[in-house]
This record gives sequence, structure tokens and C-alpha cells, in this order.
Amino acid sequence: MKIAIYGYGNLGRGVECAVTAAPDAELVGIFTRRDPASVHPHTAVPVCPADEILQYKDQIDVLIICGGSATDLPAMTPTLAADFNVVDSFDTHASIPDHFANVDKAASESGHIALISAGWDPGMFSLNRLYASSILPDGADYTFWGRGVSQGHSDAIRRIEGVKDARQYTVPVPEALAKVRAGENPTLTVREKHTRECYVVAEEGADLARIEREIKTMPHYFDEYDTTVTFITEEELLRDHRGIPHGGSVIRTGKTGWNGENTHVIEYSLKLDSNPEFTASVLVAFTRAMNRMHGRGVTGCKTVFDVAPADLSALTPEELRAKML
Amino acid sequence: MKIAIYGYGNLGRGVECAVTAAPDAELVGIFTRRDPASVHPHTAVPVCPADEILQYKDQIDVLIICGGSATDLPAMTPTLAADFNVVDSFDTHASIPDHFANVDKAASESGHIALISAGWDPGMFSLNRLYASSILPDGADYTFWGRGVSQGHSDAIRRIEGVKDARQYTVPVPEALAKVRAGENPTLTVREKHTRECYVVAEEGADLARIEREIKTMPHYFDEYDTTVTFITEEELLRDHRGIPHGGSVIRTGKTGWNGENTHVIEYSLKLDSNPEFTASVLVAFTRAMNRMHGRGVTGCKTVFDVAPADLSALTPEELRAKML
Repeated sequence: MKIAIYGYGNLGRGVECAVTAAPDAELVGIFTRRDPASVHPHTAVPVCPADEILQYKDQIDVLIICGGSATDLPAMTPTLAADFNVVDSFDTHASIPDHFANVDKAASESGHIALISAGWDPGMFSLNRLYASSILPDGADYTFWGRGVSQGHSDAIRRIEGVKDARQYTVPVPEALAKVRAGENPTLTVREKHTRECYVVAEEGADLARIEREIKTMPHYFDEYDTTVTFITEEELLRDHRGIPHGGSVIRTGKTGWNGENTHVIEYSLKLDSNPEFTASVLVAFTRAMNRMHGRGVTGCKTVFDVAPADLSALTPEELRAKML
Repeated sequence: MKIAIYGYGNLGRGVECAVTAAPDAELVGIFTRRDPASVHPHTAVPVCPADEILQYKDQIDVLIICGGSATDLPAMTPTLAADFNVVDSFDTHASIPDHFANVDKAASESGHIALISAGWDPGMFSLNRLYASSILPDGADYTFWGRGVSQGHSDAIRRIEGVKDARQYTVPVPEALAKVRAGENPTLTVREKHTRECYVVAEEGADLARIEREIKTMPHYFDEYDTTVTFITEEELLRDHRGIPHGGSVIRTGKTGWNGENTHVIEYSLKLDSNPEFTASVLVAFTRAMNRMHGRGVTGCKTVFDVAPADLSALTPEELRAKML
């Protein structure tokens, strides 16, 4: 399958690497809104201006759109679905129904297939919420994120006056995780589930007390959490906080038996050294499925819920049954 | 959907309970090879002789076959797939390709749909092996079982002369689990992965040393493992080992990055109070999918790999996207 990348940030770079690792994929181009001469991919793939992409229509089986969910993807994915099979990682959970409707209209009318909201949450975590709740209808779901870097929260801190750079880690509360894993089915507030650790590089002479106060009281981002703020030097940030690790757990506890006497715990957990590289790896597996499904005549917008798992693998159905079942 | 159960042992009883818990399922009958008068279901469902099942052909959307994998299912599932949509939990991994071929022939010729090898291993563990290996092609899979009761190993001990009853627990080796979870990608022998704990009730006057020796040297079942044998009274067995708990973990560790510099760990784990009731719950979710897929004209033999997750849920696609994605 011939894959192209639209947008070359952290995620786009991860996709370049994941496509190279796939045994059955070829990367045919990277499309960018920046000056192509300023973009330096790791491989020898051509870099082309985003607004010339229609010229490459016949050379691309599936286009992986690596834009941001806030403003890029709501416009890009429906537009590009008019001419290409596309995959995106749209992750604004509350806006998924609207995004789905827009992309479905474009893809259905043009006879293409589109997959939205692939990655790990939404994505693999969503799949595990669905599988577990279908198996154990009498139960409760819990999703914990971290320990990992939240890009959105790090950005929010950087926008505070006097802050030069920052890294925010989301951390599950161990006691909450333990209660859930023990099948206690607790009711947990936002504060009881996660804490937030902030590592902040302040500009010289900045008012550290004010910065700490502004972080801890920031609505939605930090005010509902127990937040710690640690000021560090730029050297320490670059040395100790370079990576973009993340992960988390989806846990469902449920009961069976005529009197609910048997408890079952299903847990799916991820421990990721690189959030964008793992997300990219998920996108490439689902890109394989989109290419196959479109080959069978399937069109319109899909989500991870609509993809039969066998379509994700480079192995044949016979190999899968013999080796993995 | 109207469901019937074929075979009423531990698994059949679990299916009766799981169908009752499903919001969209109705149990129309239990079919048994025993004298129906000797079978006492928990609900008021009719119990009928297995050899009269063809009379009920028009009243059953999907038949869940709850027989054993050794001799029952290889014959039952292809035979019944000639007249019914069927689901089984065939779990002899090495024989899955043959069983698939036999069932596929029968179901395809009769225009029915069949799902084989549903449950948790094969089943949910298989799905997780497939998802994880598709996402991280450069990696290794590990499956650990337990702590849980192995029915097959318990039966093997019971066949030894002088043994009145026995319970065998399969237990993952904590050090092996820790190495895998740390992403060390170890090569592990059979002995290094699991230990076997045996609780044995001996007949009065039996030669305990001989029984212990026969267990520990039993080919395939115990000789490749570190096995402990503990003799207990019948009262202790009934008091402390009544349940049929099981569980385990499927773990894949894999690398991404141009130099494999980033390690990712994907873990799916189950902690089950009742192995048959959880397996039954999986069967009922996949029965829902079979009923829907057959309604769309799909026929032939399927496995869990061929089922789009959305088909497992009682929720609509719109509800799933809004609530679970």
C-alpha cells in the first residue's frame, strides 16, 4: 500500500518511522504547509507543498493526516476525504459525533473510506472500553492516564507570564488504581484519580510564587487536581524531561452469577516511551485496514469500532488462525 | 435474539446466566444428551433432548454449543452448523485450522454463520495478541496464565491411583512477569514462566510418596514445571478450593524509533472469579455479533478476528461513538 503523510510534526515523524517498519507499506510523500525546503525527513521521501496534493491523487492509497485536533483536523479531514482515503487521530472526545458526520458525508459522496480518532485514546483504549463493557454488562469502567506528559497542560503552563518552558506529567493516584483493581468499584472524583506534576523553567527574575499560584488555580486544567509545581533549570529540563512518555490503563470490573457473586477484572494497560511514535504505529495498522476495506468496496467514515481485527495485520487469515488464535 | 444452549455443564450454566444478563437476548431452550428430567436449569427455560433439536430450527437465531473440545465440538459444531447459526469455544489451539475448515464447509453450504474458539484463550487473549503485534511489528509476545485452576491438569491428577480428588493451580513466575513488564524481552523456558501447585485429597492408606512422584514426573502435564504437591483433606478442598478462578496476561513489548530507542509495553490482563461464567459472557457478546452479521447476509466460519467490535455491543453505533470512543 502506498501511504502519504499530511503534516510533519512529532506525529508525522512517528508515522514516517512506522511506515518504514511495516512490511507491506511504502511511503510516497510528505505534504506540508511549511516551505518544503525547510522540512527534512529522515528518509529520502519527497516533500511537497500541501496545496499541490491533488496532483498526486493517483499515487496515494491512503493519506495519514497528522494535524492537530483543535483547528487542523475538523477542516482538513472532511476536505481531504473528498479526494483520498484518509486516517486521522482526532482526539477531542466531545466533538467526535460532529467530526464523524462531516467526514462521513465527504467520504460517502466521493466513494472514499475514512477512519477518524485512531491512536490510543481515542483508539485502543476505546476498543477496550467497548470489548469489556460488551462482555461484562453489569460493571463499571475506569480510565487512568499516565504517568505521562500532557502536551496540552504543558502548553497551558508555557502561556503564563514569566514561564520559559514547562513539562506537565499526569499521574494516576496509586490508591485509586489499587481500589479499582481489587474490584471495589469505587466512585472517584477527578481529584481522587489523578495528580498533576509540573516542572517549570522560569525566566530570570520572574515571580515564582505568582507562577505557582496561577498554575494551581487555572480552571479546568489544574484547579480540580492536587498539583505540584517544581522550578528547575533549562538544563535540567533538557536533561531529565526530553522524552514524551505516556500510557495508562482501562479497567472494567464487573459481576456475574445469579447473585452477582463472582467479580471479574479486565485491564488493558500501556507503558509508552514515545506517545507520538506509538500513536503513529496504531495509525499505520489501521491504515492497512482502510486500504483493504476500500478494496472490498467499503466507503464512508469508520472508527476503530468498525474494523475487524484481522484487517490490521500483515499476516493472512490462515496465518492468524494458526499462530495467534 | 433468540438463543439456545446445547450442553448444560459448567459452561452451559454460565451461558444461561449471561443470556439472562444481556438486555437484548432471550433464552429459548436448553438441549441435553442426558435425560431432560435430570437437568435442572436456574430459570424456567424448557429442557429438551439433544436429538430433537431440528424441531426447534425456526425458533433459534443462534445456538451456543457448550461441549468439550476433546471429542464433543469437533463433531458437534460442523453437524449443527448445517442447520443453525452456531458459536463454540473450541480451545485445542493446534487443531483450530482443521476445525475451522470443517465448520466453514458446513456453514457455507447451509448458508449459516459460525464462530469457533470464542472465550478468553482462545478469544480475548488472541485478539490482544493480534492487535498488539499489528501495532508493534518489531516486538515479542508473552502469554502468562493464572493464578487459576486448570481443569485438564486437575483431571490428570484425579486419574492417578489412590487420588480421591485434586485441584491444580497454574501460577506465573513473578520474576518472569517482572522482566517482561520491564521490556527486557527475555527468552523464557516453560519452567521459567509458570509453576504448578497441586492440592490433592488421597484415599485412606494411599502411598503419598508414590502419588507425589507420579504427579511430578507426568510427561507434558508436570515434568517440565516446578511442581508442588500438598495433601489436604476433603473438607479443606471443599472449603478452600471450591471456586474456578483463572486469569492471566498477554504482554507485548516492542520497539519504535529509527534505532529502536523507544520501548512500549502493551498488557491485557484478566482476573476472573469464575472461568466458565466469564467465558460464557464472551460467548454471548459474540453471539450478538453472529446474529447481526448473519442478518447482513454473512455466512461461513468466523473467528473473533473477523468480528468488528461494534457488533458485540448492545449499544448503537451512534451511542458507541458518543460514549466510548
